[in-house]
Formats: sequence, C-alpha cells, structure tokens
Amino acid sequence: MDELKRHIRSVPDFPKNGIVFRDITTLLKDGAALRDAVDALVAPFADEGIELVVGIEARGFILGGAAACKLGAGFVPVRKSGKLPAQTVEKTYELEYGTDALAIHRDAVRPGQRVLMLDDLLATGGTMAASCQMVEELGGEIAACAFLIELSFLNGRDKLRRYRVVSLIDYESE
Amino acid sequence: MDELKRHIRSVPDFPKNGIVFRDITTLLKDGAALRDAVDALVAPFADEGIELVVGIEARGFILGGAAACKLGAGFVPVRKSGKLPAQTVEKTYELEYGTDALAIHRDAVRPGQRVLMLDDLLATGGTMAASCQMVEELGGEIAACAFLIELSFLNGRDKLRRYRVVSLIDYESE
Repeated sequence: MDELKRHIRSVPDFPKNGIVFRDITTLLKDGAALRDAVDALVAPFADEGIELVVGIEARGFILGGAAACKLGAGFVPVRKSGKLPAQTVEKTYELEYGTDALAIHRDAVRPGQRVLMLDDLLATGGTMAASCQMVEELGGEIAACAFLIELSFLNGRDKLRRYRVVSLIDYESE
Repeated sequence: MDELKRHIRSVPDFPKNGIVFRDITTLLKDGAALRDAVDALVAPFADEGIELVVGIEARGFILGGAAACKLGAGFVPVRKSGKLPAQTVEKTYELEYGTDALAIHRDAVRPGQRVLMLDDLLATGGTMAASCQMVEELGGEIAACAFLIELSFLNGRDKLRRYRVVSLIDYESE
C-alpha cells in the first residue's frame, strides 16, 4: 500500500530522542486516503460476519468507528483504566518502564460474537495482546487483529501468534 | 430521536457523586444504532461541501471517524496537549476546577476549508468553543457543531452562539 504510505508523516525524536514517530494525521485529513484506508482495512472481513469492531484508545477509535460503520457492526472501546462508567474487566500490560492498565465494559461483548480488533499501529503488540485477552475473557471470538501500520522490526506479531494479523503499511526498520 | 435515546445508559454518580453519566457505549456496540446515529449526524450536511470533520479526544474520535468517511471528508483530531507530534496551535480552557489545554496540528486545516465540528456530548461547551477557536485561527470555516447528546440544562449553546449547533438527543435535566 505505497499509495497510503506516502500519506504518513515521519516525525523524528517524538515522543523522545531516537524514536521516529509515524504520524497518521496527515493520512486522516485527506478524505480520499482515509476512505481508501478504511476500505482496505475492512475488505478482508466483508463476508466474515463481523458483529463488533473493538478499537483501542485513542487513535484506534478513529479508524475503529469508521470500520464498524462500514461493516455494519457495533463499536466497542478499550480504554485506559478509570474512564469507563460501568462494570469493567481490566488487564495490566508492560510498558518500557512500568505498567499500565486497559479496561473494557463487562457487557460490551456477548459470548460467541465475532470481533475484529483494530488499532492504528502494531509496535510491540502489548496493548493489542492485552485487549484480545479481555475480549476472549468475555467470550468474544476474535476474527483478526487489523492495523493501519506495522513496525515489523519490533516483532509485535510474536505476542499475537494465536490470531490472524493484517496490516496495510509496514516499516521494516526504524 | 427517542429510538437512539433508549440506547444510552445512564450511570449515576460517575465520575463523581451527584453526576449522572450518559454512557454512549451501549449505543455504539449496537451496529444498527451506530449506523443510524452517524447517518443522522451527517444528514444535514450531505450537500454542504464538508471537507474536514474535526473530532475531539477521545469519544469524539469514534463518531468523528465514521462521520468523515460517510461524508467523504478528511478527519482531524483535537487532542490533549502533548499528544500530537508536529507543530500545534493550543488553547487553554476552563474546567470546574483549574484549566486544561487542547491542541490541533498547525497544518491540519487549510484556510477556507469547510469544517464540521463533532463531539459526543455538549455539556458546558468549553471544549467545543476552544476547539472552534483553534480551527478558525487556522482559517477553517465552521459549517456547524454537531453532537450526539446535548445536556441542554447546562446551556452549552451560550458558548457556541456564533455557530450552527445540532444535536440528536437532548437531556433537559440532570
């Protein structure tokens, strides 16, 4: 998807020195590129009976909401702990330094529902793996994990071996 | 829009005592309700040449991404200060206690672009007013501010008098 990739802006040294941040806002603001990206993200799943798209806070909400509408599915947010108002399941995951916690509403997924997991970026895979565990704890059947961008040099797929993983744009090195 | 309103869950005492939180996740997870909500949000603007939908972090991203795709427009995020990687415009706005800051990329809006502002909830209107100011500082032309829910007893429209304001679901009292 070289046509999509050229819409990504690379910002050196964000959020800290030595990191090249892949900025999707330059893609999102282009109506044609946004539509192409959403179409390409959901195309493999058009006939798979997806009932829910689960998107991860915050950038995963943008493509997730659009993908859900496109598929005629519902949308479920995975949020940082403390943001969701009703009963939740939570999962702690490791960051480079320390840990963080994600949450999903306990009634967000019914047992047996077919779920497409969606985020903007696959880096180390920690947040997606934790999100998948929560969805499965609620009885959801994960059809796939879909990403706009994959940083394949970080080997995030290793944490998602049990799942089908698709991404549209790959960066093989920093 | 009583049909949509019955999908909203009211959670008493969240995020603190005495507040009734209007939870949209019960609407979002229903595919038909989500699609109806997005269709109704964008319907008034189908022929208005909207080029960008601006959504406010974080829940505004969900409906914003979907609305942008539906309109064939681009999507631009307004985020909390410090989250956007490139050059930004920032605006401080008042909270009940203290202040907070919102940011938008300086190159997110080109002068003269027609913009639909979108968020899930109109409460006091502070975040939307600050977001509109930033978009206008960049030269954007605001077609309207659209909300899924309006808490009209908080008089948020007072802060948005200069704009066309539409909302789908109203709560006239706490």
